[in-house]
Amino acid sequence: MATVQLFRLLWFVALKPCVSTLSLEHPLDPLSPKEINRIRSQKKMPSSNGYHQAGGPSLPWWSFEVVQRHMRSLWIYWSWLPPPLTFEELFQASLLTQQYPQFIDSILKRGLNISEVSCLPLPVGWFGEVVMRRQVKITCFYRNGTINIYVRPINGITVALDLELMNVAYYAGRFSSPMPKVEGTEYHDTPVKSGPTFPNTTSSKLSIQGNVIEWGIWKFHLGFNPRAGVIISTASICDEKEKRYRRVLYRGHVSETLVPCMDPTTDWYFRTLWIRVNLVLEKPQIAFSPSLIVQPTPSLSMPGLLPRAICLFERYSGDVAWRHTEIGVPGKVIRRGEPEVSLVARMIATVGNYDYILDWDFKQSGSSTVKPSSIRTQLGLTGVLEMKATPYTSMNQAKEDIYGTFVAENTVAVNHDHYVTYYLDLDVDGEANSFMKSTLETRRATIFPHPPSPRRSYWTAKNKVLEREADARIRLGSEPAELSVVNINKKTNVGNPVGYRLVTVQPAYSLLSGDDPPQIRVAYTKYQVCVTAYNKSERWAGGFYADRSHGDDGLAVWTRSYWMKALQ
Amino acid sequence: MATVQLFRLLWFVALKPCVSTLSLEHPLDPLSPKEINRIRSQKKMPSSNGYHQAGGPSLPWWSFEVVQRHMRSLWIYWSWLPPPLTFEELFQASLLTQQYPQFIDSILKRGLNISEVSCLPLPVGWFGEVVMRRQVKITCFYRNGTINIYVRPINGITVALDLELMNVAYYAGRFSSPMPKVEGTEYHDTPVKSGPTFPNTTSSKLSIQGNVIEWGIWKFHLGFNPRAGVIISTASICDEKEKRYRRVLYRGHVSETLVPCMDPTTDWYFRTLWIRVNLVLEKPQIAFSPSLIVQPTPSLSMPGLLPRAICLFERYSGDVAWRHTEIGVPGKVIRRGEPEVSLVARMIATVGNYDYILDWDFKQSGSSTVKPSSIRTQLGLTGVLEMKATPYTSMNQAKEDIYGTFVAENTVAVNHDHYVTYYLDLDVDGEANSFMKSTLETRRATIFPHPPSPRRSYWTAKNKVLEREADARIRLGSEPAELSVVNINKKTNVGNPVGYRLVTVQPAYSLLSGDDPPQIRVAYTKYQVCVTAYNKSERWAGGFYADRSHGDDGLAVWTRSYWMKALQ
Repeated sequence: MATVQLFRLLWFVALKPCVSTLSLEHPLDPLSPKEINRIRSQKKMPSSNGYHQAGGPSLPWWSFEVVQRHMRSLWIYWSWLPPPLTFEELFQASLLTQQYPQFIDSILKRGLNISEVSCLPLPVGWFGEVVMRRQVKITCFYRNGTINIYVRPINGITVALDLELMNVAYYAGRFSSPMPKVEGTEYHDTPVKSGPTFPNTTSSKLSIQGNVIEWGIWKFHLGFNPRAGVIISTASICDEKEKRYRRVLYRGHVSETLVPCMDPTTDWYFRTLWIRVNLVLEKPQIAFSPSLIVQPTPSLSMPGLLPRAICLFERYSGDVAWRHTEIGVPGKVIRRGEPEVSLVARMIATVGNYDYILDWDFKQSGSSTVKPSSIRTQLGLTGVLEMKATPYTSMNQAKEDIYGTFVAENTVAVNHDHYVTYYLDLDVDGEANSFMKSTLETRRATIFPHPPSPRRSYWTAKNKVLEREADARIRLGSEPAELSVVNINKKTNVGNPVGYRLVTVQPAYSLLSGDDPPQIRVAYTKYQVCVTAYNKSERWAGGFYADRSHGDDGLAVWTRSYWMKALQ
Repeated sequence: MATVQLFRLLWFVALKPCVSTLSLEHPLDPLSPKEINRIRSQKKMPSSNGYHQAGGPSLPWWSFEVVQRHMRSLWIYWSWLPPPLTFEELFQASLLTQQYPQFIDSILKRGLNISEVSCLPLPVGWFGEVVMRRQVKITCFYRNGTINIYVRPINGITVALDLELMNVAYYAGRFSSPMPKVEGTEYHDTPVKSGPTFPNTTSSKLSIQGNVIEWGIWKFHLGFNPRAGVIISTASICDEKEKRYRRVLYRGHVSETLVPCMDPTTDWYFRTLWIRVNLVLEKPQIAFSPSLIVQPTPSLSMPGLLPRAICLFERYSGDVAWRHTEIGVPGKVIRRGEPEVSLVARMIATVGNYDYILDWDFKQSGSSTVKPSSIRTQLGLTGVLEMKATPYTSMNQAKEDIYGTFVAENTVAVNHDHYVTYYLDLDVDGEANSFMKSTLETRRATIFPHPPSPRRSYWTAKNKVLEREADARIRLGSEPAELSVVNINKKTNVGNPVGYRLVTVQPAYSLLSGDDPPQIRVAYTKYQVCVTAYNKSERWAGGFYADRSHGDDGLAVWTRSYWMKALQ
């Protein structure tokens, strides 16, 4: 079906220069509930009590997670490693803890009401074990009649659950601190504030055909995967002159999210949380009013549609896209400009106390000659702090390291990092892309003999296409440099390679020592940018089984020594 | 006059807890045109031909720039250094060039029409001269019937003008490159696009009494100074519990703006532009629709009101201020949140080809227990590139350093930096503030004897109040650290000092060598954060006479060795 619509740019009202042929089905569409159920029935998924059959790593666990579809064909992987935790298992683990007699006894001894206790199972990571069983550790909180669970952590109880046998593998009730006070850390059960009503101007320039979105010069496929969340594929811009779409991004998504805590004590050392969006996907329409909501999402553990899971809206940031005032033309004051408007695809993942707001922000190009097109990934982190109980009521009493910040009496918010890593497979004007580092180097200016320059120095950009993956691991800020992905085979008419610049903020890098098990698993966090030659299997930065990885898979391994392909 | 109004927070509709006593006159208000004219008549300002009297640095130049009012009393400074350039002088200089016979001759020889030439005078900086005269250098462009001046720079002509004698001090017509092509660098004379119509909800919570703004929990004085532009003073937040305003920022404004070019050749080496907003203030309402415009601004060189020079509007960014979804309370799914709304005070300064958008962004605190209040300075840079003509038509022909990037045939956009430095005098809960650096240090975790931790490392924050100005010069990213301004005498109820964190991006630092004259003048640009003990005269980072400074005034000098005051 050919779509012809009016192009929105005001200064030349014309037929849209790039014409798309679209159908409602697309090879990159997510699996439908029907398709998932068909695979499930064909492959005889073990029932939940199938976990009782045996333990140990020799059992070939079947995991829905590894079902992937590639160009309308189905690929089924079998795995000898524990599959990710399912929502049903976590729910069972939580229930089992609250019914465990010793746990109930501990709660009663503290003078608490067991019906006001909420429990949260956490992945256990890998700390050198040879035999790994599917385990979770349980952390519990006291609601005390409020809706604010995380503010009153119950400390001094260690519960480890075996998910294969579905029983308590280890229990220890140790000490009991006073319950944390809520002062300063409580949120109230107040009504949701309605957001401002954005003007719904999307109808004029937004087109949605199945999962393919067209907006201004941009066209992309909006997909979903239960591990990555939102997936942007085949993002392209319309070249007005050449009247064709030019590819920018083949595929982009969140590759890995982890939150290592900086507390080495018994109940905290293992908290290096890996986040799987399939467990936590949240409807993003709370707290703002999107102009449009699309893309029902199948959940792989419980096939079905989650309505309103991704939203698309036009963002009017109040910023200026481009402007100029000119007083240099005699007798005139000329003012030109336009507001910044972008298209946002948003997903929100709630992970226990935290809420992640994950945006893909497409900046429209008013005129490609004045300001370039861009894609921005924006991460918002909100929710409730991660806290633990402490016997101290204030900072002054604590003599040793408390591993965090006092936020209320008997309450410490524990130090931690958040690492969200994006997978970006750029295809700028084709597949043969290269990674270019432009280092800004100081030069002496005294060498100019005639006329001698009164300046002593200046900087110049030294462009270098990096040829080895090991060189393309970047610690941002360690030297003044600009980073780009370029297509060195495609030149502009003045001889510059076509490319997109990677504009970064200053994200954190890991301060853990290299022999610390969490660091062994995610060694790549010592760098903020890593570039690898394309390899279909290299999508998950922490490895395919990130949480229980031994560090033998993942970005750090892939970038050790290989020469990059896709070079001139 | 006491103001009582309804407080906006929805969860407790109550009388506004902090009551203000306001009058329409405020000691920090800008001078009115009437006041400026009164000073002008009292002090016998030299007329424009007064510049002809004599040359050299011995003449006591009277400068309007140095008129400052401190708490309703007037301070007049006399200066033995050249005062800043005035708009009238620059206009005269431009006119004089275009009437200069040799210049006309050069233009005709190039086959150009003199009536299509626009000229821009530039400050000359300081390059070791012992005797300094008030000079500008002129750079000219060929409009060729368009409105886009900067795209066709005319090269090979050097013109220096003496502003004291108002004559051409030096003229050289040298070589002539082909005129740059416009392809790829041209902007079109298209109508201004109207911005989206933001919902005008300001009436409910914005109060303007003279120059004092109240909005949500924030209250501040909005002033103007022809050197700094917008000045935010006495910004305070309402403490709902204590029913009083608590001071955050005594005064904040842009302290210095400079743009050093990285081209050491004859017509470019001196371009290290200092920007004075009084020459360039621009109406910000172009390209977006503010909900409210206030604060007519007196221009000191031509006393009078510039209407709509600053605008105030509520920004609905589309972001989420705070949200949380809770599924851990049995039988409930609880969703809470609110959209991000902030108040923006915006000024736009157009400086030749560049347009600077300078925002002060006040984030409202929905609830001070959940998310803290904040002030953000945001800088937007737009306009047209700074270009020069080159004999080459493309990158492949250039064998030597071209000091920039090819953007069109015969056109190079010259490498340069933009440094915008802010002066922030914080008064967090009073004047006795300190600068705290919290360094994140890696610790070994093996020392825990019982039970031994499976972790090997963690990081912890080591807080240190810096006592010497020399230590409080920070190169961001050189070590993992958080920066705060705290009041160590005011503690929270759990013993933490009250404070505000400085949340930075990764701004540039200067790559020029220390013996380069522009770097001697602005040595502070080797750091991105400098903290000094309060001194009334230390407001302008590049020194009071930044453009002609010898490096003996300014932030780099003030932070060399002094101990900070305001310590416990």
